[in-house]
Amino acid sequence: MKGFYHLAELPTAEIEKLAVRALHLRAGATPKRFDGKALGLLFFNPSLRTQASFQRAAGKLGLDLVQLQSGGNGVWGIECEDGALMDGGNAEHVREAAAVLGRFVDVLAIRAFAGIQSLDRDSRDALINGFRKHAGVPIVNMESALWHPCQALADWTTLDLFDVPRRAKLVLTWAWHPKPLPHAVPNSTLCMAAQRGMEVVVLRPHGYDLSDSVMNEAHALAAANGGSVSVTEDRARALEGASIVYAKSWASLGAWGKPELEAAQRAPLREWCVDASWMKLTDRARFMHCLPVRRNVVVRDEVLDGPWSIVIDQAENRLHAQTALLESQFASLERKSQVRAKNPVPLEP
Amino acid sequence: MKGFYHLAELPTAEIEKLAVRALHLRAGATPKRFDGKALGLLFFNPSLRTQASFQRAAGKLGLDLVQLQSGGNGVWGIECEDGALMDGGNAEHVREAAAVLGRFVDVLAIRAFAGIQSLDRDSRDALINGFRKHAGVPIVNMESALWHPCQALADWTTLDLFDVPRRAKLVLTWAWHPKPLPHAVPNSTLCMAAQRGMEVVVLRPHGYDLSDSVMNEAHALAAANGGSVSVTEDRARALEGASIVYAKSWASLGAWGKPELEAAQRAPLREWCVDASWMKLTDRARFMHCLPVRRNVVVRDEVLDGPWSIVIDQAENRLHAQTALLESQFASLERKSQVRAKNPVPLEP
Amino acid sequence: MKGFYHLAELPTAEIEKLAVRALHLRAGATPKRFDGKALGLLFFNPSLRTQASFQRAAGKLGLDLVQLQSGGNGVWGIECEDGALMDGGNAEHVREAAAVLGRFVDVLAIRAFAGIQSLDRDSRDALINGFRKHAGVPIVNMESALWHPCQALADWTTLDLFDVPRRAKLVLTWAWHPKPLPHAVPNSTLCMAAQRGMEVVVLRPHGYDLSDSVMNEAHALAAANGGSVSVTEDRARALEGASIVYAKSWASLGAWGKPELEAAQRAPLREWCVDASWMKLTDRARFMHCLPVRRNVVVRDEVLDGPWSIVIDQAENRLHAQTALLESQFASLERKSQVRAKNPVPLEP
Repeated sequence: MKGFYHLAELPTAEIEKLAVRALHLRAGATPKRFDGKALGLLFFNPSLRTQASFQRAAGKLGLDLVQLQSGGNGVWGIECEDGALMDGGNAEHVREAAAVLGRFVDVLAIRAFAGIQSLDRDSRDALINGFRKHAGVPIVNMESALWHPCQALADWTTLDLFDVPRRAKLVLTWAWHPKPLPHAVPNSTLCMAAQRGMEVVVLRPHGYDLSDSVMNEAHALAAANGGSVSVTEDRARALEGASIVYAKSWASLGAWGKPELEAAQRAPLREWCVDASWMKLTDRARFMHCLPVRRNVVVRDEVLDGPWSIVIDQAENRLHAQTALLESQFASLERKSQVRAKNPVPLEP
Repeated sequence: MKGFYHLAELPTAEIEKLAVRALHLRAGATPKRFDGKALGLLFFNPSLRTQASFQRAAGKLGLDLVQLQSGGNGVWGIECEDGALMDGGNAEHVREAAAVLGRFVDVLAIRAFAGIQSLDRDSRDALINGFRKHAGVPIVNMESALWHPCQALADWTTLDLFDVPRRAKLVLTWAWHPKPLPHAVPNSTLCMAAQRGMEVVVLRPHGYDLSDSVMNEAHALAAANGGSVSVTEDRARALEGASIVYAKSWASLGAWGKPELEAAQRAPLREWCVDASWMKLTDRARFMHCLPVRRNVVVRDEVLDGPWSIVIDQAENRLHAQTALLESQFASLERKSQVRAKNPVPLEP
Repeated sequence: MKGFYHLAELPTAEIEKLAVRALHLRAGATPKRFDGKALGLLFFNPSLRTQASFQRAAGKLGLDLVQLQSGGNGVWGIECEDGALMDGGNAEHVREAAAVLGRFVDVLAIRAFAGIQSLDRDSRDALINGFRKHAGVPIVNMESALWHPCQALADWTTLDLFDVPRRAKLVLTWAWHPKPLPHAVPNSTLCMAAQRGMEVVVLRPHGYDLSDSVMNEAHALAAANGGSVSVTEDRARALEGASIVYAKSWASLGAWGKPELEAAQRAPLREWCVDASWMKLTDRARFMHCLPVRRNVVVRDEVLDGPWSIVIDQAENRLHAQTALLESQFASLERKSQVRAKNPVPLEP
């Protein structure tokens, strides 16, 4: 396995194997050790679960850890457009940053959200793809503009942990939030559930569709795995028979980079906040969210503190899923003979 | 021992044991190793000694380290009021933050100063108490709004190191500072010295009393341990016969959250700066301060660079005291059989 | 070896030994382990290579790591002037910060750039020299106002890696940059090449000379090692026969602390950007830069992505050179018997 950018890159059987390993690790299995190997973590955005779980996973696996944070007195601003004339705020190009870090560590994990300013740039997932292209080592995606595959792998593990049937109904519901948020989590949740073969319903107000390319991929994954994907605004019909309610707020593609337009568009949608009445329409569904979650904005206390919520177990599985993933990445590196030429050849221009 | 919030939670004999162990560690004793266990450090405020000494202690004890910092590209802003409608700056509630981190580490240490905006919130020590309530693992206080027990344990160790008699006189003196500062250190110093059975004198100008509840606790600790606590503005009388001068600036309770009022109130108090003339009134006292200290503002160079100062040994003892403390915390976890249910039970709503 | 402030402090034979060791480490040699010893890293400025390579080196050597960053919620602002009345922004004096950190770690590495506000302060290298004076443990310079010896050691290693003859011609060329930058890298490059015995040419526009004291030191090093140092604005003549083109931007000494004057002075100099036409004037020279580098500002893509550039190998050597250096520092500590008095003596004022 060469890096981990998007869950659907993996065959379903490989995902199942990682989820089983994650549950064994959760139950106390001993992780393999990779002493003398190193994991790099580079954060362009805040995080709590991601930082903590990757740091802990590195410890469990015996890895040397290199951790860097962009902004403040951390890492230089990084340019990712080829051919750029770099006389602005960015002091370093991803070509150098990636290639250099690839010399210092064996696997490099990157967190680089959507900026929600340029739809073109976000759709290209420009920053993480720059690292994937130039690092020369496997890149693990700790959430990019388009995907959050570690969350998706943890969520798959969580569905297994709670014995959710493979054909069960999962409702991915939009929720109100004061700010427009990236699509990585809803994109990854949708495709994960489709690849699992679930009956996936996207419940969202008018104007909050996910991108066509992600929807098309989800339909294809569902078709290949015996599931289905549909989209609706009909809350009651969506929730009926649901086993999982997965809440998340996301930005409107139509208002991308236009915060005033987006604010006006979502102003009437504050009642998109999951409460007990929603859960009671389901078939005793579990409530999931990737966290952090704004209480009484995205979901009410009564749900998070009630019998439905499994968000803490879901978050704990980030650790176990990522430990399984990194274990697999480093084991794969060990199997390869190290053929990378280390010494330069004479220059013959 | 379950967490460490306030020194006085420990019986005096237990404190003595930890201080002895700290001195053994200082003298070169080998710390126990807890390989495979993890310590989390979460900082809401700056620090030098605290970060460095906890990182080093984790290394000495063989712990996996998870370190997080609030602000910038670190951790999300954390809400700690129950029932809050979270549509403001905080993206995550302490209920989730604590519970999730409690799944990733075995002991979690928190640094969360008083904000000095709301006396009510600071008096409830709301943020660290949120973590204590919801983390499900022992919480170590790396300085909260009310207490700095690691400093107090290090200071106890320092008094032992310098063979200061248990009944000696300790003067805790207020000093001028350009900003109003939290009460955690003076509160903890006062109670530590009272629990040690010292003759404690709080020397402060009018308007700078510590809180009634802390004073009451200090009186009770003194009574139970053969010491005394008094308050005065009479510098000469306070310093006479003192073995320890412990300087610290702190905010006025009467002006809490009112910086202009506080500034006006302390404007005439700039001469509250410890100099050689103060020290000469004592019985060859040692000078202590928790650091960082503003030179020639809180204390003059002649004192810090003179024969009285023991602030560097005092700071070094942060490392040894905390290593002893963490060793005790992790040993206690090992003794418990691990009965925490790891797997979910079926939901029957 | 006691700390590492400036490369030229080391005899040439010692540098050669470290470079050989660095190349062995690059080729896969096993670093020594120093379990139970600790390295502290304190950053006052951003970095990518420096943070990552020092973290990784600590892992390779089995060191406990203490890492601190100034600014934000990191470390307190640090004052380095003796006698300062500290009622401004700095909460701690280097006397305490250094002495305390020296109690927590065995070797302390500091990154403290020139502020480019006060030429006096920058010329004294005040902050790092404060740490050197007061820490009581060896200080490693991770780039100070005056020197970047780790870069210089890595560059020496890189010249060896590429079999650059000891007497070859190295052109250190100024380049345009939107901001005035510190002199540490050009100072260290110049002296490194001079100590190696190279034919060193500083190619710079009028107004961009390095300091007299550094030039004098470089001349002396060249004289002692069979090399030469000259300065010119004649690009064609400088580049003719060159084996190495080393680009770097730096501030004008004449405009130090005067950003408007500096901006006006460098406005006409934007064509000081290394492109293929420069490289073609050389004797198939290698292109070097310490990174980060602004593409198409300091150097054009065609050079960085062309056959000349060795900047990634150069950066990788930071890791190996620093691992060799730290290995040597810690081995030297182990050889010394530990005679530092740990326990205080009674106070007799």
